[in-house]
Amino acid sequence: MAHDSARAERGRGPKGALNQARYSEIVEAAGIEFAEKGYQAARIEDIAARVGILKGSLYYYIESKEDLLFEIADRGHARGLGRVAAEEPEVAAADAPTRLAAFIRRWTVMLPRNPPYLTVAERDIRFLSGERYETVMEKRVAIHQYGRSLIEQGIAEGHFDPEVDVGLATNTLFEVLNGTTRWFRPRGRLQHQDLAEWYVSLFLGGLGYEGPRP
Amino acid sequence: MAHDSARAERGRGPKGALNQARYSEIVEAAGIEFAEKGYQAARIEDIAARVGILKGSLYYYIESKEDLLFEIADRGHARGLGRVAAEEPEVAAADAPTRLAAFIRRWTVMLPRNPPYLTVAERDIRFLSGERYETVMEKRVAIHQYGRSLIEQGIAEGHFDPEVDVGLATNTLFEVLNGTTRWFRPRGRLQHQDLAEWYVSLFLGGLGYEGPRP
Repeated sequence: MAHDSARAERGRGPKGALNQARYSEIVEAAGIEFAEKGYQAARIEDIAARVGILKGSLYYYIESKEDLLFEIADRGHARGLGRVAAEEPEVAAADAPTRLAAFIRRWTVMLPRNPPYLTVAERDIRFLSGERYETVMEKRVAIHQYGRSLIEQGIAEGHFDPEVDVGLATNTLFEVLNGTTRWFRPRGRLQHQDLAEWYVSLFLGGLGYEGPRP
Repeated sequence: MAHDSARAERGRGPKGALNQARYSEIVEAAGIEFAEKGYQAARIEDIAARVGILKGSLYYYIESKEDLLFEIADRGHARGLGRVAAEEPEVAAADAPTRLAAFIRRWTVMLPRNPPYLTVAERDIRFLSGERYETVMEKRVAIHQYGRSLIEQGIAEGHFDPEVDVGLATNTLFEVLNGTTRWFRPRGRLQHQDLAEWYVSLFLGGLGYEGPRP
């Protein structure tokens, strides 16, 4: 039942292990096409051509271009939720500056392991229809809620400035983290770890934290 | 001569005052189409239809769709340079925290007065060819250089953390400022001025400034 409903959610979906591998290739090809041309301009023919199949064969895997957008957006947000859930127990029990610093670090170092086309998960989510939009938004809200709870905890502990608007701070946090892929290219002495340390300084200092660096 | 070369830069361009007004309408319509569909997917016919003229008549004003992208990107960056240049003399003579706070405020409160399609100036700049790309990039580099100089000044003065990588901090500053339009919608008690104050806290605190708030 669960499997059937998952298939229904994204269209017909792949049937069997070999097809699963091919399906992944198709999703990746779609991601690249969407990222380069925009979701609306991307053509099913070009996605099919990228994996060396005919447009007609692609419809064995999907019913519409939107199936592919949903798959990408949903996977991207599932990865984000995975990062949230990866908080180690001793960190989860720590104070907010420690938890926020750990979250910024594990989110930032994950970025280079994301396929570059995951940016479309952010940009083109508005093209998803009804239920699919809701499915992705549920994950997105849960991720934001986690970031928000860390800032609220820090204010309650007296570590962060109580004048800060928690909503503005949370949105800025995710804008900064996810905006990274738009401009940051690691080079020589500057890797994602270094960027993560700058982000930790920016947000802990910006939220008014004055204690030792976690 | 200057006028001729400006016209050459963007294509044939408008000829006369009435046409200038119509040309502005066309640029605005193009901005909306680009923002909604992406530069590559946007069609000249739809831009013409938005201002109630035929595709053929549009070619009286421009030679190609790229003329419109250049106009939008170049105007957007010219506005940014204008904000840089609007630094008041007493601010220009002040310390870096004061100058950076003033810059963040005047940049942020300008955002709601920008046409929403200016985001394409950022996103689609890569589709501009050779000389036009260079023309826009020159303005962009000058804007970034100004932000960078404020952070360098603050480090030299001992107000900002000397461990900060100036390039990372500058890029993050502009990412945050210009990313605003992607998510911030003013409502009730939270206006752009309030957002500006949060950004001032974020960057002064994040850069390690510990003095009185400018």
